[in-house]
Amino acid sequence: MTAAKDTPHLSAELAAFAANLRFEDIPAPVLRRAEDLLLDCLASILAGASARPVLAMDRYAAAMGPADGPSEILINRRRTSPVFAAMVNAAAAHVVEQDDVHNGSVFHPAAVVFPPALAVAQALGSSGRDLLVAAVAGYEVGIRVGEFLGRSHYKIFHTTGTAGTLAAAATTGRLLGLSPEAMLHALGSAGTQAAGLWEFLRDAADSKQLHTARAAANGIAAAYLAREGFTGARHILEGPQGMAAGMSRDADPTRLTDGLGTRWALAETSFKFHASCRHTHPAADALQQVLRDNHLTEDAIDRVVAHVHQGAIDVLGPVVDPRTVHQSKFSMGTVLGLIARKGRAGLPEFDAALDDPAVAAFRARVTMELDPEVDAAYPQRWIGKVTVHTRDGRTLHGRVDEPKGDPGNTLSRDEIEAKTLSLGRYADAATDAELRGLIGAIWNLEKAERIGALLP
Amino acid sequence: MTAAKDTPHLSAELAAFAANLRFEDIPAPVLRRAEDLLLDCLASILAGASARPVLAMDRYAAAMGPADGPSEILINRRRTSPVFAAMVNAAAAHVVEQDDVHNGSVFHPAAVVFPPALAVAQALGSSGRDLLVAAVAGYEVGIRVGEFLGRSHYKIFHTTGTAGTLAAAATTGRLLGLSPEAMLHALGSAGTQAAGLWEFLRDAADSKQLHTARAAANGIAAAYLAREGFTGARHILEGPQGMAAGMSRDADPTRLTDGLGTRWALAETSFKFHASCRHTHPAADALQQVLRDNHLTEDAIDRVVAHVHQGAIDVLGPVVDPRTVHQSKFSMGTVLGLIARKGRAGLPEFDAALDDPAVAAFRARVTMELDPEVDAAYPQRWIGKVTVHTRDGRTLHGRVDEPKGDPGNTLSRDEIEAKTLSLGRYADAATDAELRGLIGAIWNLEKAERIGALLP
Repeated sequence: MTAAKDTPHLSAELAAFAANLRFEDIPAPVLRRAEDLLLDCLASILAGASARPVLAMDRYAAAMGPADGPSEILINRRRTSPVFAAMVNAAAAHVVEQDDVHNGSVFHPAAVVFPPALAVAQALGSSGRDLLVAAVAGYEVGIRVGEFLGRSHYKIFHTTGTAGTLAAAATTGRLLGLSPEAMLHALGSAGTQAAGLWEFLRDAADSKQLHTARAAANGIAAAYLAREGFTGARHILEGPQGMAAGMSRDADPTRLTDGLGTRWALAETSFKFHASCRHTHPAADALQQVLRDNHLTEDAIDRVVAHVHQGAIDVLGPVVDPRTVHQSKFSMGTVLGLIARKGRAGLPEFDAALDDPAVAAFRARVTMELDPEVDAAYPQRWIGKVTVHTRDGRTLHGRVDEPKGDPGNTLSRDEIEAKTLSLGRYADAATDAELRGLIGAIWNLEKAERIGALLP
Repeated sequence: MTAAKDTPHLSAELAAFAANLRFEDIPAPVLRRAEDLLLDCLASILAGASARPVLAMDRYAAAMGPADGPSEILINRRRTSPVFAAMVNAAAAHVVEQDDVHNGSVFHPAAVVFPPALAVAQALGSSGRDLLVAAVAGYEVGIRVGEFLGRSHYKIFHTTGTAGTLAAAATTGRLLGLSPEAMLHALGSAGTQAAGLWEFLRDAADSKQLHTARAAANGIAAAYLAREGFTGARHILEGPQGMAAGMSRDADPTRLTDGLGTRWALAETSFKFHASCRHTHPAADALQQVLRDNHLTEDAIDRVVAHVHQGAIDVLGPVVDPRTVHQSKFSMGTVLGLIARKGRAGLPEFDAALDDPAVAAFRARVTMELDPEVDAAYPQRWIGKVTVHTRDGRTLHGRVDEPKGDPGNTLSRDEIEAKTLSLGRYADAATDAELRGLIGAIWNLEKAERIGALLP
């Protein structure tokens, strides 16, 4: 009934890694990066506090979930059960497009790992170390699942929703102290709930927030159910009727266990510098370089060609006339227009851009072209290349090999603190004093004996 | 950003049908059949009351959901919010394999339609007529989505989990009185959450219960979110990054709106007579015919060949040595062994069969063969054909064109009442007096002004 004994049982190896991971196994720089990513995620959650889809999700949680509980909905400090707190926080984490991304898996881990980690840790009274270990387990599992599912998966499926369900299950399962066997069941139950389609992009619909919320909630459910003895498929990833069989044409099983315990995928994760879809960042950085090196201003630019990978065309291509602020973050022309006109593409710039005819005019002068070199390097490396044609007839080229926020070009703790204050202020979801308290709490997380409310 | 104006917007037509369906539109025989199916579903829920996965799901619901509320968990009479009541009831509905099936879509509608219908109606104080209309909407939507997704989908995905999410959303959305526009958003949010993989069958894992529970819960979430203004993709079914694009290779868009308002797919739905996977029923009926016509007993049989469609081989093929009672219901050899030895394959027979060496011995003498005629007729018609080789050298053929429980060979209300009493007694989940009260309540549902607790 199961695979032959001499075939590696990859799902089980991944489950065992997540179940057995100990604090002592994790190098200190990885733990520090985990803290960076956690703070960055909390700031993204607060920045999403006033977004319409997030408020709708919160009202749904209030209608269906307990009116009190151990876990904190950060955007309004309401308490409820872990699954509803994680659901709302995960919806909020992804809405302003400032949360992290892992390039190789094209997966946003923070939004689906930290909301479950926080909500479940609060429910269990876990320590800061426990939370960090669980988060690392979630990153390592989710990123490998995303890499395994591959580029064909990402063409149709939102990997953050699909792989994210397993990341959330691994995170929750580690906090619950599941055995390797129970963790395998948790991954089985997570994988069979994994969902999320890109179709919503065409309509600027709210599904991206639903995907992170659902991944977080269903991953929690999978792990809690496993604790109750509920079983799942043992080969949910690689089996003949598993995730890859149904949702990928180029799945690579070797990715599932690649370097487990020695390669720390969490430390490969990039911070977002611009407040837009990550697929726009390499070109945005390359355009900034051209502007800076040539002392160009917007009015000197006739048109811009962004040389991109196919994934960027798949995700950004349908967005030709953005009708919401959120959708405009998936418009290459809008992003490059903001870089050209304002020098930056942060949250306030996007809010002001939607009805700005000058931005729309610039957008019409931006095209994307598939670039063989960029496409071949992707998704391991996200190379940025633009060609700028100036009004005075020059053709200028810009190139960046590692966009700002990538591991080799990462944010310092000062930059993360500044980003936290900026995001935290954006929706008035926290005072500066609260934000400074939050920063201090995360930098000292390893010493916390018991995770309580972060914004009491 | 949307499809060209002259292309039919199929998802929108389906949504509008579900939103606009009125009691007066539905022929009386369809309403009566809906009552039959509802009672059959409630009996299946009660029969699942003591199943381990269902109890695990109930403990999860108790941990995460409200400790009180308007909606009834039928297996233990606990009250909670609609989403948790529907989740547990839906898990219970599918566990004893006695719930209904629609042949053409290979989809079990009751388990994902009635638990949301009941839980939401109880929360809203809806009338019996409202509940019936909502259930019909759910059947019509879910069945058409299942037909649309086609056979290639069912090879990997459990259609009851995927199409079921949209069925639950349509049901809930109709009770909430969503506008056609809001219903379209509900379907969008449902479709982007739709999941469920067959991989669990190989391990006899509990995912089948998770799929119905999750479809019910996520469909409710999709509709409630739409009421809160949360938007979804407008072409979630037929769009270039929608469900069919990601999860089917033979999707037929014409099925989505086939005969809306004139063809009542609910009335095409079959009751289950045997307590096993529906794929075993045609052969079981054909074997019963051979035994009856030839006055054969088990000891006269050398071996049996079941001539089946490919879907039966896909689902039943992996189950060669069933290790749980539930898995044995997916074993053609076990089912035919029970028919041969006991004359029937009901819940008590399966409980006794697992450790019975005589059943195992018979199982080893049963094979399945792909039959071109049966396969070509499937899934519109589920023809049963067996060849029985007797120990005295005869070769006997059995054939049924409509298995017991199919629309042309359906159960009478007397037979449904008898099945209800049998299922209700199975797990001691209700007294006979309660069951008779339940039967009376459902036969008079149309007159109920307000749906309250069914087992107060």
